[in-house]
Amino acid sequence: MPILDRILGRPLPSSQEEEQRIGVAAGIPILGLDGLSSSAYGPEAALTVLMPLGSLAMLYIGPVILIILTLLAILYFSYRQTIAAYPTGGGSYTVAKENLGTWAGLLAGAALIIDYILNVAVGISAGVGALISAVPGLHDYTLTICLILLVLITLVNLRGVRESALVFGIPTYAFVTSLVVVLIIGVGRSFAAGGHPVPVESPPALPAGIATLSVWLLLRSFASGCTAMTGVEAVSNGVNAFAKPAVRNAHHTLTAIVLILAGLLAGIAYLLKAYGIGAMDQAKPGYQSAISQIVGAVVGRGVFYYITIAAALSVLALSANTSFAGFPRLCRQIAEDGFLPKAFGSIGRRLVHTFGIMILAVVSGLLLIAFGGITDRLIPLFAVGAFGAFTLSQAGMVAHWRRVGGPRSRVSILVNGVGALATGLALIVIMVAKVVEGAWIILLLIPLLMILFYYVKRHYDHVAARIGGPRPLDLTHNEPPVVVVPIAGLNAITSKALRFGLRLSPDVIAVHIHQGQEDDRVFLKQWNDDIEAPARAAGMPIPKLDIVPSPYRQLIKPLLCHIDELKDRYPERLIAVIIPEMVEAHWYEYLLHNQRAQWLKAGLVGRRDNRVVTINIPWYLD
Amino acid sequence: MPILDRILGRPLPSSQEEEQRIGVAAGIPILGLDGLSSSAYGPEAALTVLMPLGSLAMLYIGPVILIILTLLAILYFSYRQTIAAYPTGGGSYTVAKENLGTWAGLLAGAALIIDYILNVAVGISAGVGALISAVPGLHDYTLTICLILLVLITLVNLRGVRESALVFGIPTYAFVTSLVVVLIIGVGRSFAAGGHPVPVESPPALPAGIATLSVWLLLRSFASGCTAMTGVEAVSNGVNAFAKPAVRNAHHTLTAIVLILAGLLAGIAYLLKAYGIGAMDQAKPGYQSAISQIVGAVVGRGVFYYITIAAALSVLALSANTSFAGFPRLCRQIAEDGFLPKAFGSIGRRLVHTFGIMILAVVSGLLLIAFGGITDRLIPLFAVGAFGAFTLSQAGMVAHWRRVGGPRSRVSILVNGVGALATGLALIVIMVAKVVEGAWIILLLIPLLMILFYYVKRHYDHVAARIGGPRPLDLTHNEPPVVVVPIAGLNAITSKALRFGLRLSPDVIAVHIHQGQEDDRVFLKQWNDDIEAPARAAGMPIPKLDIVPSPYRQLIKPLLCHIDELKDRYPERLIAVIIPEMVEAHWYEYLLHNQRAQWLKAGLVGRRDNRVVTINIPWYLD
Repeated sequence: MPILDRILGRPLPSSQEEEQRIGVAAGIPILGLDGLSSSAYGPEAALTVLMPLGSLAMLYIGPVILIILTLLAILYFSYRQTIAAYPTGGGSYTVAKENLGTWAGLLAGAALIIDYILNVAVGISAGVGALISAVPGLHDYTLTICLILLVLITLVNLRGVRESALVFGIPTYAFVTSLVVVLIIGVGRSFAAGGHPVPVESPPALPAGIATLSVWLLLRSFASGCTAMTGVEAVSNGVNAFAKPAVRNAHHTLTAIVLILAGLLAGIAYLLKAYGIGAMDQAKPGYQSAISQIVGAVVGRGVFYYITIAAALSVLALSANTSFAGFPRLCRQIAEDGFLPKAFGSIGRRLVHTFGIMILAVVSGLLLIAFGGITDRLIPLFAVGAFGAFTLSQAGMVAHWRRVGGPRSRVSILVNGVGALATGLALIVIMVAKVVEGAWIILLLIPLLMILFYYVKRHYDHVAARIGGPRPLDLTHNEPPVVVVPIAGLNAITSKALRFGLRLSPDVIAVHIHQGQEDDRVFLKQWNDDIEAPARAAGMPIPKLDIVPSPYRQLIKPLLCHIDELKDRYPERLIAVIIPEMVEAHWYEYLLHNQRAQWLKAGLVGRRDNRVVTINIPWYLD
Repeated sequence: MPILDRILGRPLPSSQEEEQRIGVAAGIPILGLDGLSSSAYGPEAALTVLMPLGSLAMLYIGPVILIILTLLAILYFSYRQTIAAYPTGGGSYTVAKENLGTWAGLLAGAALIIDYILNVAVGISAGVGALISAVPGLHDYTLTICLILLVLITLVNLRGVRESALVFGIPTYAFVTSLVVVLIIGVGRSFAAGGHPVPVESPPALPAGIATLSVWLLLRSFASGCTAMTGVEAVSNGVNAFAKPAVRNAHHTLTAIVLILAGLLAGIAYLLKAYGIGAMDQAKPGYQSAISQIVGAVVGRGVFYYITIAAALSVLALSANTSFAGFPRLCRQIAEDGFLPKAFGSIGRRLVHTFGIMILAVVSGLLLIAFGGITDRLIPLFAVGAFGAFTLSQAGMVAHWRRVGGPRSRVSILVNGVGALATGLALIVIMVAKVVEGAWIILLLIPLLMILFYYVKRHYDHVAARIGGPRPLDLTHNEPPVVVVPIAGLNAITSKALRFGLRLSPDVIAVHIHQGQEDDRVFLKQWNDDIEAPARAAGMPIPKLDIVPSPYRQLIKPLLCHIDELKDRYPERLIAVIIPEMVEAHWYEYLLHNQRAQWLKAGLVGRRDNRVVTINIPWYLD
């Protein structure tokens, strides 16, 4: 079995594309990993902002999460509608493009592209960061572990969609199951204890308050907590990955993901308050994540604690995978409209978008390398792209329903309108709260991506205009070309070239560069005896011989100049340059022969003349 | 003025080759630098071996140098004869090849090639080493200075022969003049003082003797001193660099070099003894070279001392240049016989052998880098190659005279016979004395070089047998080729390709790879309307359309397989594959298009079939 087959699996025929499609059970890990894993850090992110309030933070974390849950519900209903309306894939790009215009769509696309790339780098580095805080001995290998993980995720994705469902399904379901068990036990104990359960492992005491409550603080807390929602878009973007009935499967998957996510967020928020758990400073030694504190408080530091934490870590690290599902699909859509290189549209050996997967891996790998595997500084940039795309998508859906009309359209407009408004407001809050932390980079990158889109599209349009579409073959004025055969001496290779040239046209011109050392007369006699005489005898047109002097012993330059002269001499005709070429059997044999054929070809390409055609007559030395 | 012209000078036309030839005054620095500079280290090398004798060494350095001078005289007369007999260049390679057979010639050639390369590395590093012992602050930059010097010497040589005469003439004549002045003053004072002159600057006292005299010690001293003779071959090798009358100019140059060298060696030997100067240990601090001690003793450490030492240093460093004159000429001769790549024979823009100069620069540069610019360990390897070549050359001349005969042949045989015997004996002494010091590497490298010669020759013979010499053009069976045009869709590029194909042959087969996604019917209708119908209307042969299924969405592989099928279907015909190719205007535009044309070309070359010809129909996007 070839090595590539071993690593990536045998190529799949196009006919198996249906079989590669997924159902709900596979859809949850593939499209939901990002969303579900964010429950592990979203509530903590919101809580961290509130910590200057001290124990008062416990009063406000509930309401903040409640607002986030409301927004999640709005998003859920909005995206259900989107999926139904765009059963072949209703990502923000498509929805915005079709309803708000191409450039609105590209704006959403650019925002999502940045978001997907950041998600890979941040997800992997967060997971590895958590692993390292558990096993500090690995600290020196942070970047290496990040890159190994990236390569593994890339390989799994290159193996195909079904394979990734299998690989990512186990940690996803382990994480959800164990966390749900912890939450049920915790909530049950809390109710049994009248809201004041006794922790098995006591969380650290809350710090003293050092700030007073402000709307700004609550808004920032909300903005940070919104990172818990960034995976929701994935399902609507990937509808066409589902087996039939695609819309129903997508709906069920979205429902499952949102319900689980909402349950996890609500449970976590409740237990944070019930056990009085605060967010700790990551930079200080002894740091424990909020999830770690909750699990410790509920079930103590036993085996189950470690299973839950391990599942949380792996889900965090693997949440990068959602980008690998979303990014290539999005890029393919943009490429199909001509705004990105067409290679994004081609389908690889395992029926996945190989090019998109590789680009994502390389760019996020470079990000990881640039930041040494520690991407804390990228986290503030995170939610901006996602919420920008959400808003555009919802606004697009409003326009969609207005255009479509119909009896239920008013309800639909309302649902998506509320969604647009809510996500738009959230976006403004996030931007205001995070722009100083570095989110301005996003505001710079998005226009740059849009400029790239513009130039790519312009190039493709230009090419299309030049090469045109189908049109009837024009066979008038199809004169034979003027054939030019550069020859150094007379041998079997030049004979083959001249034979071919005489077949092609009556006007064959052999060009001999005279470097001013050898004697011409010998050559001229050979030419007369071995070329002209046989051609005359066969009644064929006789090839002409042009001898071009080269006082400076150059070869290519005088040859190119002579071809330019011939172009002037035959202004209407194609010039076919026959290049006899010896092809060595081994690379080292190239050292033994000049590479004039290559230089000549490069020189001809450099002249950029559509009238000059090159013909390679190879001569293989075996 | 283009940058290359600025660095290397304007290209010289072939007609100026005569003007680039040199006379005696230029010949001495170009071909004699190596020989003359060796007076600066040869006597010291002999003396170093004698130092265990303590002050007794003074008794024996004279006789050892005398033997070396005798050998030099023998070599002089032998090489005079060689120059006269081979006025177009009588290097050891030519003489041994023509008289002792090809492989004897190649043995001499291999020995000289290694010697030339070592000379560059050792010369530069010795000069820089001396500079650094004068200016210890430069120690950290040893390798850098070596490489800068190498690049400068290379550039001067690339500028042409006359330029190097100018650049290298000044230090050569400065060195010879100042050293001769010192020697005359010293010898004069010594005579005036009855053989016991009072040194201006007293040399360090001689160490106590720790060994007794032995024949072996004297032989080793002689072997080491022989490094003073390694440049003598250069003149006979470079006869054709001289202006007419070449033989007379070469004779005068050789005479001048040998006389100056002999005078310097004799004078140095005399003053060593007169002033009681010993060789010091290079590894110990306070080391002074023998030349430095002599100059100090004779004229003191004044301005003249520093001028003389500076000239000696630069001549030492520039002695590498003799290799740059000899190596490319030698390699060209070997290449002309087919034992080295033909590129050694081509003549560059300034009428020098650019390729040989570059190879010498690169190989010796790698040597310098490998040894960090300190090549002490290479010095023992040095004289082996030179004396091997001397011996073969002299033996060849003996055979030459025996064949030629004539009245003076017996004298000539005697002269060259004595030369062969003397250099042969010296070679044996050098090998025995130095084999343990590392000279065995030479005995390994020479056979390796000969194996290389063998395989290069075999390859060229093989190629020549395959492509043959001139023979009459065979125009029978010149059927039109079967034309294959791979097409993805129908547009202006494919139209151009099909037009060209129909011009070339009535059998045009368009191949369309069907990747199992698009609908064939649209394409078939277009083909019918836009290709078949116009061809039929024009009364031209109608191109065939082969649709090849590709279940795994590959393009190149099914195409190559289909071409293989066509080869079977048309067993006697050439297959001409027309490759329509879009050529982008900027490199980054290549990212926007697939490079199928390149892959297809590579695939066709990989199949190595002489029956398949490729035709590039370019389409330039401007």
